[in-house]
Amino acid sequence: MSAGPMRASVRRTMVTRSDIEAAAARLAAFVRHTPVIDVDGASLSLNYPIKLKLELLQHTGSFKARGAFNRLLNATIPNTGVITASGGNHGAAVAYAAQALGVNAEIFVPGATPETKVSRIRSYGAQVILGGAAYADALAASRVRQAETGALEVHAYDHADVLAGQGTVGREFEKAVPELSHVLVATGGGGLIGGIAAWYAGSAAVVSVEPENCPTLATALRVGHPVDCAVSGLAADSLGARQVGALMFPIAQVFVSQAVLVTDDAIAAAQRLLWDKLRLIAEPGGATALAAVLSGRFVPPDGAKVGVVVCGGNTDPGKVAT
Amino acid sequence: MSAGPMRASVRRTMVTRSDIEAAAARLAAFVRHTPVIDVDGASLSLNYPIKLKLELLQHTGSFKARGAFNRLLNATIPNTGVITASGGNHGAAVAYAAQALGVNAEIFVPGATPETKVSRIRSYGAQVILGGAAYADALAASRVRQAETGALEVHAYDHADVLAGQGTVGREFEKAVPELSHVLVATGGGGLIGGIAAWYAGSAAVVSVEPENCPTLATALRVGHPVDCAVSGLAADSLGARQVGALMFPIAQVFVSQAVLVTDDAIAAAQRLLWDKLRLIAEPGGATALAAVLSGRFVPPDGAKVGVVVCGGNTDPGKVAT
Repeated sequence: MSAGPMRASVRRTMVTRSDIEAAAARLAAFVRHTPVIDVDGASLSLNYPIKLKLELLQHTGSFKARGAFNRLLNATIPNTGVITASGGNHGAAVAYAAQALGVNAEIFVPGATPETKVSRIRSYGAQVILGGAAYADALAASRVRQAETGALEVHAYDHADVLAGQGTVGREFEKAVPELSHVLVATGGGGLIGGIAAWYAGSAAVVSVEPENCPTLATALRVGHPVDCAVSGLAADSLGARQVGALMFPIAQVFVSQAVLVTDDAIAAAQRLLWDKLRLIAEPGGATALAAVLSGRFVPPDGAKVGVVVCGGNTDPGKVAT
Repeated sequence: MSAGPMRASVRRTMVTRSDIEAAAARLAAFVRHTPVIDVDGASLSLNYPIKLKLELLQHTGSFKARGAFNRLLNATIPNTGVITASGGNHGAAVAYAAQALGVNAEIFVPGATPETKVSRIRSYGAQVILGGAAYADALAASRVRQAETGALEVHAYDHADVLAGQGTVGREFEKAVPELSHVLVATGGGGLIGGIAAWYAGSAAVVSVEPENCPTLATALRVGHPVDCAVSGLAADSLGARQVGALMFPIAQVFVSQAVLVTDDAIAAAQRLLWDKLRLIAEPGGATALAAVLSGRFVPPDGAKVGVVVCGGNTDPGKVAT
C-alpha cells in the first residue's frame, strides 16, 4: 500500500542520464577526460581483451574530483566555504575543487591519517582538522562545525550531484567504447558505481566489485536495503564505507547486474600486474574491479565486450612495484 | 657536384609515410594503441594546455616494442632466431617480440646491467649473455656471435624497419589529435624521433629534446653529420647512444625543426610532476620531452597546439615518487 508513494519518491531522487549530461557540461572545464586503453588478453592471461578506463589519471588521482566539482558548481556556496570529513580521496578532491573555485575548505580527517595524505590535502590550500579515532568521529566533528559555520557539506557519495558527477565516468566510457556489454566498477560508498549504473541504465551490465572484507553492496542487495558492514583490509582506505549510500541503492537494485567479491590477494595481484604489464600504479581500490576479471570471480559470457574502471592511483608506488 | 647522387641516395633510404602505414598494419595485432590525454595548463604551471601521448603504457614499458616487432615481422628469421645488444628498453622489446613470434632471442648486455633489467629480459624467454664493461663491448660480442649463428641482428635504432615501427607513434598521435602544430620527442639514437619526423614530414614541427649531457642530435645538426658525443647523467640508460643513427640523420636535417637541451634537474622535476599531477611513473628518458616544456627551454609560438610523447616508464617507481 505504501509502495506507490515510495516508488515515486525513489524515482524523484534517482539520478538520470540527463542529470549526468548536465554534470558533464558543468565539469568540462574542470576535470580531465581520462583515456581508455585496449589491453590484449595475453597480457592478462585471459582469453579475451578488455578496455581499461584510466580514471586514476584524473585530477587528485581519483574519480572523486568529478563528484566534488559537480556538487560545488551546482550549489550556492556560502562565504564560509565547504566542509567535509574524509581521510582520503574525497577530502583531496574537495580541497582541490575548492581551491580551483576560490572558496574556503575545511577537511576533517581522523587523527591516524598518514601525514602524506594530510600534506596533500593541505597542498590544495584547505584547512585540515585532525581528530578522533575513526572516520565516524571526524564526520561527527565536521557536522558540529558545519552547524556553527553554515559551510556547504559535501558528502563523499550520498548526494545526487556527487552521483551525477561520478556518472560522467560512465558517459565518457560509453562514448569512447560504445560496444561495451559489461562494465566493472569497484564499490565503496557506491557513488561511482551508482553514477555509472545510472548512466548505462541497463544498456550495459554494470558489475559491482568489492573486497570480501568490505561487502557493503553485496550485502545490501541480498538483504534488500543498506546495512552496516564490518570493513577492513587492503582497500579499506578507499572502499571502506560501512554502508552504501541511500541514493545509490535503488539505482543498484535496478541497474547493477551482479555484485562480485574479491580477496585482498587478488587485489594485490591486480596492482602488480598493472605495473608489470602496463606501467600503471593503481591503489588497492583502483585495482579492485580488475581483480574480479583476473581472479575469475567475474567470467563474461561468450562475445561479451568487457570494460573495467581503474578508479584511483593514490598509493605509495614503491610498495606496488616490489 | 656530388650533391645530386647523394641526395638521391638519401631519398632512397629515407623512411616515408607509406612505410609507416605499412608498419602500422603489420603491428596492429602486436602493439598497443596508446592513449592520449589532454592536460590543462594549470596542472603544469603553464599558460597553455598540452597533449601527452602515453607511450609508456606500451608493451615492455616503452615505444621500443614497435620497432622490434616491425623489424622481426618484416624479415625472414633464421632458425637461430634474433640477436641484439642492449642493457635496456630495446633488449626487453626484442625479447618480448621474439617470444610473441615464437623465435629464439639472444640479448647481449653489459656486465653491470642491473639484475632487475636482466630478469625482465629473461622473463620474456630470451637468453641473456652478460659481459663487458659497456654497451660497445656487448655489441662487439653480439656481432661475433651473430657471425657464428647467422641470427637476425636487430639494431636498436639504425634500421629502416625500426624507424618505420617507431614512426607509428607519430601516426597514432596525428590521428588522435590532428591539430597538433608541435610534437616534442626525446632523442637518444634517434629511432623514435626519426620515425615521427618521417611521419609528420613537416606538417607539424617535430622538436628534439635531449639531456644536456647526451646532446647527440643537437651536435650532429650543428656540425652537419652524426658524431660521437660523451654521454652521461640521469637519462643515459635510455638516451645515451653516443651517436645518432645514420638513417635518421637526413630525416632530422629536413624534418626536425629544432633541437632543445634540458638539464637533469629539469628531467627529474618532470618525473615528479607526472606523478604528482597525473599519477604516471615515467623513466628519465620518458620525461625528457616534457622537461623542455616545463623548464621553458621550449616555448611555443602563440596559438601553437603542443603534443609531447612520454615514451617510457621503466624505472623504480619508489625513486620517482619520493
